[in-house]
Amino acid sequence: MQVCEIINVGTELLLGEILNTNAQFLCRELAAMGISVQRVNTVGDNPQRLREDFMLALGRSDIVILTGGLGPTQDDLTKEVVAEALGLLLQEDAKQMQCIEDFFRVRCQPCVQSNRKQAMVPQGCTVLYNENGTAPGIYIETLQAPPHAGELARDCATEGATKIVVLLPGPPRELQHMFANMLAPMLQQCSDGVIVSHHLRTMGIGEGRMAELCDSFLSSTNPTVAPYAKEGEAYLRISAAAATQAQAEDMCDCTIKKLQHVLGNYAYSVDKPLEQVVLELLHAQHKTLAIAESCTGGSICKRLTDLPGASQVFGWGFITYANEAKQNLLNVSCETISRFGAVSAECAQEMALGALVRSGASLALAVTGMASPADDTDKPAGLIFLHATDGSQHKSLKLETGRSDRAYNRSVATKHALDLVRQLMI
Amino acid sequence: MQVCEIINVGTELLLGEILNTNAQFLCRELAAMGISVQRVNTVGDNPQRLREDFMLALGRSDIVILTGGLGPTQDDLTKEVVAEALGLLLQEDAKQMQCIEDFFRVRCQPCVQSNRKQAMVPQGCTVLYNENGTAPGIYIETLQAPPHAGELARDCATEGATKIVVLLPGPPRELQHMFANMLAPMLQQCSDGVIVSHHLRTMGIGEGRMAELCDSFLSSTNPTVAPYAKEGEAYLRISAAAATQAQAEDMCDCTIKKLQHVLGNYAYSVDKPLEQVVLELLHAQHKTLAIAESCTGGSICKRLTDLPGASQVFGWGFITYANEAKQNLLNVSCETISRFGAVSAECAQEMALGALVRSGASLALAVTGMASPADDTDKPAGLIFLHATDGSQHKSLKLETGRSDRAYNRSVATKHALDLVRQLMI
Repeated sequence: MQVCEIINVGTELLLGEILNTNAQFLCRELAAMGISVQRVNTVGDNPQRLREDFMLALGRSDIVILTGGLGPTQDDLTKEVVAEALGLLLQEDAKQMQCIEDFFRVRCQPCVQSNRKQAMVPQGCTVLYNENGTAPGIYIETLQAPPHAGELARDCATEGATKIVVLLPGPPRELQHMFANMLAPMLQQCSDGVIVSHHLRTMGIGEGRMAELCDSFLSSTNPTVAPYAKEGEAYLRISAAAATQAQAEDMCDCTIKKLQHVLGNYAYSVDKPLEQVVLELLHAQHKTLAIAESCTGGSICKRLTDLPGASQVFGWGFITYANEAKQNLLNVSCETISRFGAVSAECAQEMALGALVRSGASLALAVTGMASPADDTDKPAGLIFLHATDGSQHKSLKLETGRSDRAYNRSVATKHALDLVRQLMI
Repeated sequence: MQVCEIINVGTELLLGEILNTNAQFLCRELAAMGISVQRVNTVGDNPQRLREDFMLALGRSDIVILTGGLGPTQDDLTKEVVAEALGLLLQEDAKQMQCIEDFFRVRCQPCVQSNRKQAMVPQGCTVLYNENGTAPGIYIETLQAPPHAGELARDCATEGATKIVVLLPGPPRELQHMFANMLAPMLQQCSDGVIVSHHLRTMGIGEGRMAELCDSFLSSTNPTVAPYAKEGEAYLRISAAAATQAQAEDMCDCTIKKLQHVLGNYAYSVDKPLEQVVLELLHAQHKTLAIAESCTGGSICKRLTDLPGASQVFGWGFITYANEAKQNLLNVSCETISRFGAVSAECAQEMALGALVRSGASLALAVTGMASPADDTDKPAGLIFLHATDGSQHKSLKLETGRSDRAYNRSVATKHALDLVRQLMI
């Protein structure tokens, strides 16, 4: 098995200003490819320490992946340090220079000298062109540890082996896209097997109960089955190791089918997010959905429209934070609000019916509730009413999270809201 | 300044199963105490590699903090490895043993032999009793690098200096509580000052241009000024080291004022996110805002309502994905749509005016554009029109990101939309 080491470069990481999500992403992806990550190191924008850590990593690992420090400014120096340590000159890459010039021309911004620095790459490397930014990734194959490698490095290095050195941009979106589309296929060739993982996702059942129902699967070794929970959703990760992708997929598939049988309708998808399941159901049944939101303030509309293709099944959203907006746009009656309050099952139902009529959609969903504690009401934070209807059928739900955490309450309400629409359609 | 190194122990981190939030927490807290974290290393539950990394860290740092690997199972071996490396025997701590027995008695669970392992501590250490779990923290002061320390370690160690070695439990809740209540006061005694950091945030100017304007500040050493960029926003981090919090704040403040002068209206806040700046302006000017969104699909409404207190200045949101919704709810004329298309400056302006009239708000904001490529139009992805108005004053913006990335386009449009409202109010 190939041994890999990751070096995250950035003083902002050492100051705790940003969370190192790149490390988790890379570790998870590499593990899935059968590449063993043995160390992750974070070092600041300091050329001397970066050089020390790089040489040490190169001595003891087959693959060294560095992230960050590829930007246009003076303190971005990963490329310079690595090239110098490997004895490679930097030279301008014409295609990358063109990409950078295009990037700025399209934005009508000037391309300054510091941006040109980003087109310099180590000689003999493979350039990973960045489709989401101006910093290119770099892929270098080098024969064993170079002559400058220190005592310790020489001790551990495999004699005569080819080492792979990769530089990736720091912004997670750029890094993830480049990894998945360019680097992963190149690295897969060095790996002697694959690990395939899938997630069986559930709603409406807690992690504990889900794990209980699937208890007999949890001790299985290949595929492994592990329970996880995240903000109101619980899921199982199924991972199979095999010589080929197809074999590993088959093994996962077989276990997933058994788990789906045990979990029934609680299991809403394999891998797909809930909003995608809802969009696909709407498409398949040629239905449209209108959404009326109060406390979630646009979160449900946003989540549904995060995906392309939403416009064919979703046309109307009403963010009725004010009571007047609920009355004017959704025809919620004055009496309902004064008698039951805006945070009530009655109001949620009238909002859904109002959205249905107003938009002419085939289904409507409404949410009203308390995202945070408020002074002007005795209703507790986390009390949320949801309603979904097609005019004849109705599904409703009352949530009481017991928590004051605004982000948590909005996120949980959004997931349950989407699940309510799913339930109306299955 | 004291130099610190963190070692996070756990194979689950190297598999990417959990996000390393402990590293960020510790880095942020230590930076605020004036302790310089120079490296963060993650290593698996492997005694040999852990020992190597620990000795290296001990040789080159004044303080080494290890997290995780203090549990009751066989693969929890941080304490054993560190004690052996420092030449210290493990002995049972009577008070800790009592804590563990109490912990299980209260829960009516049996205290098994493996739990007793958790009461063993290195001789001469200070035990940090864990109020939230069964694994105690450990604080050791040791005179310089021990005799087993390797060549490299001896090279870098400060001769005769006292080193501090700390072991903390891995679960974030336990670690954070122990750090704040027990460890921080002990470490503060070794620190000779504090570091304060602030972020000067900008919109409408790229990282390269921002850095150029502020070029003369970037080589300053105290405070340091460093440029960063994130999805259409660029910001500067200003960090000052001083003996007291007040002095460091003053130093930052002085530099920030100069930078604000250079950057003018591009600089929208110190530390605060854009949506908070907009909310505060609305509150201060007793204004209300209505929002009409097409391609952003609720992202702007969501972002504004992520913050508590939005309901006083935001009551009405219109997610008009369908043309009929634009016409029916916002009174966009049929002619405008057929002549200029829904993705046009004209449509954005009519949407904003429609939202203003319909809601009775003092300001309205509208966004319409292409988040992704579409077959039924020749308009490119990333072409987005924004319009903000109070009925008499108008601010409008045309974005051409040149990118097909839906998430990026929506995120950039959301930021520019909020900035347009800000510009209307300053």
